[in-house]
Amino acid sequence: MTPSFTDSLLWRYATKAFDPSKAISEQELDSQLEALRLSPSSFGLQPWTFIVVKNPALRARIREVAWGQSQVTDASHLIVLCARRTIDAAYVKAFVDFIASERAMPRAKLEEYESMMTGFIASHSPEANAEWMKRQVYIALGILLASCAEAHIDATPMEGFDPAKVDEILGLGEKNLASVVLCPIGYRSADDGYAALKKVRFPKGQMILEM
Amino acid sequence: MTPSFTDSLLWRYATKAFDPSKAISEQELDSQLEALRLSPSSFGLQPWTFIVVKNPALRARIREVAWGQSQVTDASHLIVLCARRTIDAAYVKAFVDFIASERAMPRAKLEEYESMMTGFIASHSPEANAEWMKRQVYIALGILLASCAEAHIDATPMEGFDPAKVDEILGLGEKNLASVVLCPIGYRSADDGYAALKKVRFPKGQMILEM
Repeated sequence: MTPSFTDSLLWRYATKAFDPSKAISEQELDSQLEALRLSPSSFGLQPWTFIVVKNPALRARIREVAWGQSQVTDASHLIVLCARRTIDAAYVKAFVDFIASERAMPRAKLEEYESMMTGFIASHSPEANAEWMKRQVYIALGILLASCAEAHIDATPMEGFDPAKVDEILGLGEKNLASVVLCPIGYRSADDGYAALKKVRFPKGQMILEM
Repeated sequence: MTPSFTDSLLWRYATKAFDPSKAISEQELDSQLEALRLSPSSFGLQPWTFIVVKNPALRARIREVAWGQSQVTDASHLIVLCARRTIDAAYVKAFVDFIASERAMPRAKLEEYESMMTGFIASHSPEANAEWMKRQVYIALGILLASCAEAHIDATPMEGFDPAKVDEILGLGEKNLASVVLCPIGYRSADDGYAALKKVRFPKGQMILEM
């Protein structure tokens, strides 16, 4: 019997100590990035960019604004999941142009879809749209954590950092991006005592209801 | 070679037409619910409840407030992913009690962890905490979509519904819950033309940056 997806979820944990001597292969890294790229999003709009921070100096600076957490510098790779700051009809138009081209279909067939998206965006404040895009990034985070778990790559989702400072360090404002969550990935240190702790989840009868 | 996780992501799509005659087995359903139960969340707080709506009358009423989308009633099962409306020190305390019990460890050892969580919650407005909990639900959504894709179960994440009305239909307010996203799961209809469309994702060089 092959290991199941739930086995992979049981295997994973929010790694506290990474082994800095163990690197993810380029091929394995590519698979994780491809999973991110394939993540679902509302309307398929993909209002995000994922940054692989390889420069050690940048990682050291990010660690300083992330409560000094060692995972930021010790993990094999650091991924910063970012949302767009704004979204508008021009972005939607470019997206629809891209669909028409990728699917080799008449653009006119996509006009209703385009109006649905532009109508949605126009009906919300810029702040609400920004928050909505951040929510989408959490879908991608779920997909990345699943992908890493399936590959037995350790990963630590981290909200504990100063997003404004990370944006500054990486120059994200000028790219119309906002950092949402950090995800160091790599391999756990043999010393990480957290690996052996029982996973704590509320029981099924409490978390899942039938109606 | 076994199919990879990215193959599963390529297989999945936001199913437009489900085959109402095909049901997910109880065993398969349990696996998907178990994946949801194991989903990561910030601090491990699991500020959510997942509802499997089996009552056809309830599903019909939800469809009415979800633009009449057929997936709500035609899919084998309808899952409503909900966030807590409020979170407070009492919730955190109960969570920490539960950790101490599950891990058979002295509760005193968890006091620092508890203060970190209560401090986080106290430092944000109730509205910001509510939004933060909704974001966590999107991690669980990503995990559910990954789990279904791996099992070749079709799934359609849906934001297009009136959350206040769904809350009313399911009586969620009195449970301190808010509906966040609907996810019908089941098996695609052979007639669903969307299944054959090329998946549209921005190219790697555009979506993923190295720094």
